[in-house]
Amino acid sequence: MNISEDLIRRMSNYRRVLYKLKSLGFINVFSDNLGDALNISSTQVRKDFSMFKITGKKKGGYDVNEILKRLNDILGKNQVQNVVVIGCGKMGRALINYNGFTAEGMKIVAGFDTDPLLVDNAGRIPIYDISELGNVVNEFNVKVAIMTVPESSASQLIEVLENAGIKGILNFAPIELKSRGNCRIHNLSIILELENMIYFVNHLDDKIKI
Amino acid sequence: MNISEDLIRRMSNYRRVLYKLKSLGFINVFSDNLGDALNISSTQVRKDFSMFKITGKKKGGYDVNEILKRLNDILGKNQVQNVVVIGCGKMGRALINYNGFTAEGMKIVAGFDTDPLLVDNAGRIPIYDISELGNVVNEFNVKVAIMTVPESSASQLIEVLENAGIKGILNFAPIELKSRGNCRIHNLSIILELENMIYFVNHLDDKIKI
Repeated sequence: MNISEDLIRRMSNYRRVLYKLKSLGFINVFSDNLGDALNISSTQVRKDFSMFKITGKKKGGYDVNEILKRLNDILGKNQVQNVVVIGCGKMGRALINYNGFTAEGMKIVAGFDTDPLLVDNAGRIPIYDISELGNVVNEFNVKVAIMTVPESSASQLIEVLENAGIKGILNFAPIELKSRGNCRIHNLSIILELENMIYFVNHLDDKIKI
Repeated sequence: MNISEDLIRRMSNYRRVLYKLKSLGFINVFSDNLGDALNISSTQVRKDFSMFKITGKKKGGYDVNEILKRLNDILGKNQVQNVVVIGCGKMGRALINYNGFTAEGMKIVAGFDTDPLLVDNAGRIPIYDISELGNVVNEFNVKVAIMTVPESSASQLIEVLENAGIKGILNFAPIELKSRGNCRIHNLSIILELENMIYFVNHLDDKIKI
């Protein structure tokens, strides 16, 4: 079974659309409905669901509550997923103070930094020295870290995170990191995304010129 | 000429690697060097460069300064790119206060919100009511907006941004937005990225089971 990131992204999107349909009173939903909402074909929807052995009803369509139950299970929504933030500058602290994670079944259990001035055990979410990472990872069964450190520190931190037991990193530094170990890395740099966007908006008229 | 987002991402990466090589004293660079650094084939590097008519030297290799000049030109680094932030909650304000944009040739010229309590013209970067967006877009030739608003407001704001003249949106709300007009949208939700990552780290052992 080959599960792609894109497939899981669509599973996230189905889940979000289904909650909206549920709030509108939907009990039953068809692959066409979901396809329309996501701007993809109904064949794709059925194919995606069959990958996870989600089957329709005999009369056609899917039971909204049943698919939601399955999607929550697949996406790990049935238990809180603990996450840490590495690098507690402005961006890191904004994430630590962001209160939208709870509703999504995610919890930031701690922040980490190398700067002693940022270490702070008194806050609602404690900020520890990076040397404490392994202990927190073990205690809270943390698998995922959000890394908001400067570009210069990002690369060398991967090994520290891997050694502490982290399995997945969301990297916000403007550098495309690759793991040499088993850690999964998503690069999510605002700078790089802006750079990409800026190219395309500055070249909107190119098609005409060429 | 079909320019993909992935191609422009590689151009960004070449540029970053080249600056590092330049700081190490490199004058000349080969497609193999760049391929190794980015973990892609040298054929891919040459193909990418030829898309932008970047040619090598007769003796082989590329002149570092010359490619950098071309890459800076292509990526719009030769003039400041003005950007606005829509939604000035914690995340929006963290972006407004982030001082890493300048070195990248980008400048946040203003923030916008609908909440009168957040409007603040006294700061280093002003925060205006959203009704002022069109004026600022015109005055500062803004094409790109970073949108850090709640999921519930994100969808309806697209039209407001489009009408104000915005051509590209980086959307941080956990909803995959699509433009019905000409606006380009990149979805960059931390929640959705975490959800994706969490799936994969929770299913690391699946290959063995299946």
